[in-house]
Amino acid sequence: MNFSKEFTSAILIIGNEILSGRTVDKNTSFIAKWLGDLGISVEEVKIIPDKEDIIITSLSELRKKYQYVFTTGGIGPTHDDITSESVAKAFGKKYEYNKEAYAILEKYYANSDFNEGRKKMARMPEEATLIYNEQGSAPAFSVENVFVLPGIPTYVELMLPQLKDVLISGKKIISDSVDAKIRESSVAVDLSKIQDKYPNIDIGSYPYSKEGGFGTVLVMRGIDRAEINRCKEEVKEMVKKFASN
Amino acid sequence: MNFSKEFTSAILIIGNEILSGRTVDKNTSFIAKWLGDLGISVEEVKIIPDKEDIIITSLSELRKKYQYVFTTGGIGPTHDDITSESVAKAFGKKYEYNKEAYAILEKYYANSDFNEGRKKMARMPEEATLIYNEQGSAPAFSVENVFVLPGIPTYVELMLPQLKDVLISGKKIISDSVDAKIRESSVAVDLSKIQDKYPNIDIGSYPYSKEGGFGTVLVMRGIDRAEINRCKEEVKEMVKKFASN
Repeated sequence: MNFSKEFTSAILIIGNEILSGRTVDKNTSFIAKWLGDLGISVEEVKIIPDKEDIIITSLSELRKKYQYVFTTGGIGPTHDDITSESVAKAFGKKYEYNKEAYAILEKYYANSDFNEGRKKMARMPEEATLIYNEQGSAPAFSVENVFVLPGIPTYVELMLPQLKDVLISGKKIISDSVDAKIRESSVAVDLSKIQDKYPNIDIGSYPYSKEGGFGTVLVMRGIDRAEINRCKEEVKEMVKKFASN
Repeated sequence: MNFSKEFTSAILIIGNEILSGRTVDKNTSFIAKWLGDLGISVEEVKIIPDKEDIIITSLSELRKKYQYVFTTGGIGPTHDDITSESVAKAFGKKYEYNKEAYAILEKYYANSDFNEGRKKMARMPEEATLIYNEQGSAPAFSVENVFVLPGIPTYVELMLPQLKDVLISGKKIISDSVDAKIRESSVAVDLSKIQDKYPNIDIGSYPYSKEGGFGTVLVMRGIDRAEINRCKEEVKEMVKKFASN
């Protein structure tokens, strides 16, 4: 459910290592939770390979469709890092050395070899706005409504807070849940009735099995705390009814 | 890199819990590795919410574009499980009780309440082919080139092997790697030269930091074992050169 029609976003995960299954993508979950706290919903995630034409097409589509787009991956020093150049092409902008980024990297590599690969990390679309990396060397950047982040989750987590004042955000999306020691199939009908009663709340049902036992987490998401509390009480009553059977 | 132009696929992850960041998607990694062993590449992954129109549009696009589509999520008993009905609509097929699935579920719930939610799991597009679930009760299904799987990773892992004889597969995609205790930016230029020499191999460079030290995993993917071995030797030589500096 999109709680705030204006405050939408998409995440574009760029990287062969995710598509091949070698790496499990953890950035989506972190970025989505962080955006949720700002009241910005993630409406779509796309995972694509390191291929220029596909990056350009995907980005051009997503940045028109949503208020913000966050990309991860492909801004490092090696031959398979082609995101920055592709973003420049998608915007029809020059791909050039960003002076500030160059200076940061030159200083960082002052006592070692500032080679072509390292210099490449300073190349960005013209007029890019830097997103700094306090721990690593290379900054990420944004162009208009597109935020181009690295693939390494620890860097993403370090960089996101800088964007808080840049993003125009909505009401915080609140999430609450009831952990019920019952199978979701037993409450399906009653839960559906509660959902009908609360159209502004998105109720999700997530079954799990742990140490041989079954359970279901019933998650309520919305932007009105009082309404979520009322809904939660009804869900708890319902769970009680089924647990005592 | 797509090693085998014919043997392509996409994964469509359906579920608000992934988009909100509550759940980290593990199915993509498992399915992609499993398909890679069969020589089928995953070209695209899309994560979308439990919304009928978006499921229909996404599925209609992906199933024309790729040889196979695998969906996960949304085939359970609750109100937010709308994948099966949406798939039926995407194919213009009736959404009805599958007799065999109904019989399986009826037997499974013989000693408890076979309620509407549980019956719903037997509703599928007409002429669906069942994919059995030895551990759980509800089967998944396929329609033409679309394989509709559950969201729970343990069920996905149990069900996939059944599809091995159904899928027309290519040459196994072989993956090998060299773990180098160097920063990727130091080898970027030389690595690029090796990549140019082996156009049929997809070389990826994945930096990591562990216990304060930096390292880079250099991954080679291709379908010719001998060629990968030759490439790997060159990568190892290159790493030795930089490590001794």
